[in-house]
Amino acid sequence: MARQYLVGVDIGGTNLKVGLVTPAGEVKAYTTRPTRLDGGWAGVVDQVEELVAALLQQQGLSLTAVGGLGVGVPGTVRLPQGEVLFAPNLKWENVPLLATLSTRLPVPVRLDNDAHVAALGEYWRGAGQGYGSVLLLTLGTGIGTAFLWRGRVFRGRAGLGSEMGHMVIDPAGPLCGCGNRGCLEALAAAPALERLAHRLLAAGLSSRLTCAGNWGVGEVFAAAAAGDEVGQKVVEEMVGHLAVGLANAVVLIDPEVIILGGGISGSADLFLPALSEEVARRVGRMAYPPPTIVPAALGNLAGILGAAYLVRGELGEDE
Amino acid sequence: MARQYLVGVDIGGTNLKVGLVTPAGEVKAYTTRPTRLDGGWAGVVDQVEELVAALLQQQGLSLTAVGGLGVGVPGTVRLPQGEVLFAPNLKWENVPLLATLSTRLPVPVRLDNDAHVAALGEYWRGAGQGYGSVLLLTLGTGIGTAFLWRGRVFRGRAGLGSEMGHMVIDPAGPLCGCGNRGCLEALAAAPALERLAHRLLAAGLSSRLTCAGNWGVGEVFAAAAAGDEVGQKVVEEMVGHLAVGLANAVVLIDPEVIILGGGISGSADLFLPALSEEVARRVGRMAYPPPTIVPAALGNLAGILGAAYLVRGELGEDE
Repeated sequence: MARQYLVGVDIGGTNLKVGLVTPAGEVKAYTTRPTRLDGGWAGVVDQVEELVAALLQQQGLSLTAVGGLGVGVPGTVRLPQGEVLFAPNLKWENVPLLATLSTRLPVPVRLDNDAHVAALGEYWRGAGQGYGSVLLLTLGTGIGTAFLWRGRVFRGRAGLGSEMGHMVIDPAGPLCGCGNRGCLEALAAAPALERLAHRLLAAGLSSRLTCAGNWGVGEVFAAAAAGDEVGQKVVEEMVGHLAVGLANAVVLIDPEVIILGGGISGSADLFLPALSEEVARRVGRMAYPPPTIVPAALGNLAGILGAAYLVRGELGEDE
Repeated sequence: MARQYLVGVDIGGTNLKVGLVTPAGEVKAYTTRPTRLDGGWAGVVDQVEELVAALLQQQGLSLTAVGGLGVGVPGTVRLPQGEVLFAPNLKWENVPLLATLSTRLPVPVRLDNDAHVAALGEYWRGAGQGYGSVLLLTLGTGIGTAFLWRGRVFRGRAGLGSEMGHMVIDPAGPLCGCGNRGCLEALAAAPALERLAHRLLAAGLSSRLTCAGNWGVGEVFAAAAAGDEVGQKVVEEMVGHLAVGLANAVVLIDPEVIILGGGISGSADLFLPALSEEVARRVGRMAYPPPTIVPAALGNLAGILGAAYLVRGELGEDE
C-alpha cells in the first residue's frame, strides 16, 4: 500500500523519540532512546535513521509507507533551509539538519523548534484543538514558547517565532543566559526555582528539603503539595512571575487559549488555580475576560504528533 | 455620480476631525473642531453629523456620494456591535455609537479604537505600507497600541486588540490607572515623564525648566534637544523603558515594522537612534535581527485615513 503514515521525530536534550503516526493523528507505534550526544550532530542523524528503520521493520513496513518525516529540535531553526542555528542542550550550532536528513531518508522532511512542534501537536490532537489562536509555554529547564494563529506557527519577521522565555518582567532581576536581566526564564524556569529554594533554606525557612540534599524542582513541587513552607513559597513566587508574563502576552495578543507544557506542567494542579486567578485579576481592569489557561494534554507524545503534523500535507491533507 | 468617497472621522479627546477620502487614500478635504465634550456622547454625535454635512456641502456633494463612514474613538470598542465600552478622555461608558450614527447617517458605518485606526491609516498610506505585520504605539498622554497582521487588526480572543501600554515591565514600579504596577504607560507616557522631570529638578539637577514653571513633555524634549541635563535624563529613562517593552513585543510577535506615533513621536529624532540600538542589543542575543522602528508618517491625518480604511470595502475594494 502507498504512503499512509507520517513519522514524527522528537529530538530532545535527553531522549530521542520516533513515532509512526496515522493521517488522523493517532500514534500507531513509537520508540524512544537516550539521545546519542557523544557523536555530535552526525551521531544524532545516524540514530534517527536507525530508529526510523527499526520502527518501520517492527511494524512490517518500509519507507515506502511513509509520506513524510517531521522533526522537532530544541533550538532555533531557520526556515525554509531547515538549519539549526543554535541548540544549547545539544551543543549544536549552524547544523544543516534538514539537508542532511533529506539525503539519508528519501521522503519529504520538515523540521521546526520543539516548542513550535509541541504546540502543533496540542493543536492537532491535544489541549489546543479548535482554538484559532494558541499560546504554548513549555516550562522546564528553560521556557520555550509558540504562538499559533489558525493552526500555523506565527513566525514573525525573522521567521524564528516566539521566545517568550526572554520577555523581561523585571529589568533589575537576575542575569539570563541571553544577556538581559529579569527574563521570565531567569525567574520562573526550573533552575531559578531550585536556586530560590536553596536561598529560602539558607534563610532558615522550614522544609523537608535540605541544603545538602540532591533534589530538583520535582521534589520542590512534591514538598509544596505536602504543605512544605519552602516548597509553597517557591510555587507562590513562580505563580507571581508567570502571571506577569502571561498577562503581558494577553495585552499584546490575547490568545484564545494558553497551554502550559513541559516538566513543570505535570504539577499544574498545584498552581493553575492561583495562576489563572492572578492573570485574570491583572488583565480584568483593561476589560479582558479571564484567559483560558490549561495544562498540555499530550505529555510525551506532543513532540511526535506535532512533528508529524509538519508533514501532514504530504498525504494530501489540507494545509 | 455614485458613491465615490469615504468619510473618515477621528474623535479625539481634544479635537474632532472629519475628512473626505478617495478610494486611493487621498484626503480630498477635511475639517477639524474642538470636540464638543459638554453635551455627553449625544452632543458628539450631533457634531459628527453637522461636520459631515458641512464638509460635503463645501465640496458641492451630498451623502449620496459617500460609500461609507469610518470612525476612530479613543477607547475600547466592542465589535461587531460598535459599542464604546470605555473612553476615559471622553468620559464615555457603554455608548451605542455605531447604532446611533447609523440611524443619523444612512450609509455603512464602522468604528474602531483610535490606535487601531491610526495603524490602519499608516498601513494604507503611511509608514506601514507593504509590511505584513505592523506594531504601532501611540505615545502621548497614554500609550495606545495596535498590532496589524496582513492589513487587519489582530483582535485576539475578546476582540479588544492590543493594550501594550499595560504591559508590565517592572512589577515594583509606579501604580498605573489599570490597577497594576509598572505598566509601560505608567513609566513612559507623558505624565510619567513630566513627573520624572519634576523629581529630577527637585533632586537638584541643572535645567532651564523650573519647579514652578508651566511646562509639559514637549518643553522637556525641547530642553533635551538643547542639551539640558534634566531633559536628557528624562529621554534616557524613556528610551530604557520603551526598549524593554519593544524587545518584549519582538520576542513574542517579532513584527516586520514598529511604528511610533502620538505627540511624543514628533520628537523621534531625539530618541529613535538610541532606542533602536537598545532594542537591537536586547533581542540580538536571541538571534533576532534588529527590528525596524520608524516614526509615524501621516501625523494628524492617520486617524482620518485609517477610519476611512475601515469602510473601503463598501466601494468594492478588496477587503
